[in-house]
Amino acid sequence: MELRRGWQVSEVLIVGTGLIGASIGLALSSAGIQVHLADRVRAHAMVAAGLGAGSVDPPDPARLSLVVTAAPPDVLPEVIGQALKRYPSATVTDVGSVKAPIVEQVANLPGSERYVPSHPMAGSQYTGPLTADARLFVDRTWVITPLATNASCDIERVEWLALTCGARLVQMSPHDHDIAVAQVSHVPHLMSILTAGHLREVPKSHLQLAGQGIRDVTRIAGSDPELWRQILSTNAQAVRAELAGIKADLTELLAALDNPDELEHFLHRGRIGALSVGGKHGKSVEEFASVVVEIPDEPRALARLFTDVADLGVNVEDVAIEHDQVRQVGYLAIQVKSNTADQLRAAIVDRGWEIRPGSG
Amino acid sequence: MELRRGWQVSEVLIVGTGLIGASIGLALSSAGIQVHLADRVRAHAMVAAGLGAGSVDPPDPARLSLVVTAAPPDVLPEVIGQALKRYPSATVTDVGSVKAPIVEQVANLPGSERYVPSHPMAGSQYTGPLTADARLFVDRTWVITPLATNASCDIERVEWLALTCGARLVQMSPHDHDIAVAQVSHVPHLMSILTAGHLREVPKSHLQLAGQGIRDVTRIAGSDPELWRQILSTNAQAVRAELAGIKADLTELLAALDNPDELEHFLHRGRIGALSVGGKHGKSVEEFASVVVEIPDEPRALARLFTDVADLGVNVEDVAIEHDQVRQVGYLAIQVKSNTADQLRAAIVDRGWEIRPGSG
Repeated sequence: MELRRGWQVSEVLIVGTGLIGASIGLALSSAGIQVHLADRVRAHAMVAAGLGAGSVDPPDPARLSLVVTAAPPDVLPEVIGQALKRYPSATVTDVGSVKAPIVEQVANLPGSERYVPSHPMAGSQYTGPLTADARLFVDRTWVITPLATNASCDIERVEWLALTCGARLVQMSPHDHDIAVAQVSHVPHLMSILTAGHLREVPKSHLQLAGQGIRDVTRIAGSDPELWRQILSTNAQAVRAELAGIKADLTELLAALDNPDELEHFLHRGRIGALSVGGKHGKSVEEFASVVVEIPDEPRALARLFTDVADLGVNVEDVAIEHDQVRQVGYLAIQVKSNTADQLRAAIVDRGWEIRPGSG
Repeated sequence: MELRRGWQVSEVLIVGTGLIGASIGLALSSAGIQVHLADRVRAHAMVAAGLGAGSVDPPDPARLSLVVTAAPPDVLPEVIGQALKRYPSATVTDVGSVKAPIVEQVANLPGSERYVPSHPMAGSQYTGPLTADARLFVDRTWVITPLATNASCDIERVEWLALTCGARLVQMSPHDHDIAVAQVSHVPHLMSILTAGHLREVPKSHLQLAGQGIRDVTRIAGSDPELWRQILSTNAQAVRAELAGIKADLTELLAALDNPDELEHFLHRGRIGALSVGGKHGKSVEEFASVVVEIPDEPRALARLFTDVADLGVNVEDVAIEHDQVRQVGYLAIQVKSNTADQLRAAIVDRGWEIRPGSG
């Protein structure tokens, strides 16, 4: 997305210097923007400033073009209202995880037409400025939910914010946003909580068997319970609707446990879902192509093949072995970016490898 | 655990060269052991051999001391039975994810007293020898479920296997093992499947909002459905009992959504569970101690503090900011290994920092 030329943000105030606020401060500061930091807990703002996220000096209201409110959900409407009042020439945005309830509460406040709701889809199980990272938003989605009352210049300032932080912009309505985050963030969070909470009934000796799988599933359950109580409470309606679907699936699963075909179908459905979100930063699988190479029946063939591929400087995204039951030979399917597949095919045929015809 | 001196494994055969089998082959080969590889899909054994996991030459039965069967669950009892028959002087173990049903099926086969069940708690969502890694088992738990009929020399060979792969040994009964894996592996897997499967009802535009959280929760749902159908089917009884508990929790959660206190309690319970398995390779939190340092009200204080800590060569496990509401100062809680905490305290006081008294 291109921004209107000639338009500039002068100074930015970030209210709330936890992980998200401090990370925005770091990203903007490293882009050369003058950033002011404020936090109810002064030590947080000081730490964020110490890390290079901005200055704790109060801003000159006349020079402020954008206020980013990054406070906890429960106090966001109040913090947004104060910012609209104190900085009458500034656009005000927030980073709250739920949009419609905030929009509703801010709607009748003076200056509400300068409030443009947004939500960067980044974070971690950690909180506080110490875990801040200037690159937290790079290639992540940043949702903006503009309101009918917003002027385009206010919307553009928030778009500038997201793009300057390196994020990918997505626009949707506050209502759609709230359903979407219930689906892809709040319900997965609760599934992690349910999995982790169930461990209270598990003997300590059994926990020794915990491997990487359960750690991945339960990682986000380690997040701040108070913050998540606030997020989930404000989106309870959408969350409940999704959880009802999960409960129906769980009933189906319990019935499928004794039926191999139904169980495998159930597992397949999950695999398809996992693949639909599993890419690195949302890369789609269509961007890749397979080059299928016959594996000769000789020691070290594979090491030689990988050396050849590495020599070509082509980045291998994935590899898999295929097997021809009739000819009793093996194939190696090398997945690469679509635009490098032809180059790879030509080059490795040059080096004497057999390519499966028509592969790709 | 110390192994009996003077005892040696001569040669090892690995039947099934997927991720687990090939990784064992790599670990043993790099320890200087002569490894033979066999697989129903010859290309897999060839690839594993090509990666350095062993040789595809058939073993001399007289020289074979250990057979590791790493085939899919459905065929494991048959593969174990064949190994017991073909290699009458060898100990036979397996790496199957569920133990009691295999033990039951093998019990009446000739030579069954030489079968020592085991289960390395490692793996990934990937399958096949290409993803093999000699260090896959390092610091992971490897469960051995010895049987009353096993001779101690057979048990020791399997202990040697686990330790040579770098794993930590745990002994339990087949029955307890199967309940434990239902709790810490199979149910978390199904929670991942439920979360991912629910995405079938989510519009594609909403999937753009997917962040790291849902990717972590759904990662293992990308695993091979056929393999997991086999695992779950053989442990259906234990899995069903745990899922019933999850279902009750889900009902409780739905009721708690409108009650902030109950919801936060629910989230807390999940957090405690997540922390109970969340350590790196199962490190316990008791191994750590906090050193709490006052953050002076000056720019760059934190950068200077971290430089000082780094200069001391102390590994920082975690950091958190604490806040004194009365004195309006901030503290940095630095978590380090317990045995380095006193050293760190003394050294940073030397450098002029204020330590909160009695911290630890």
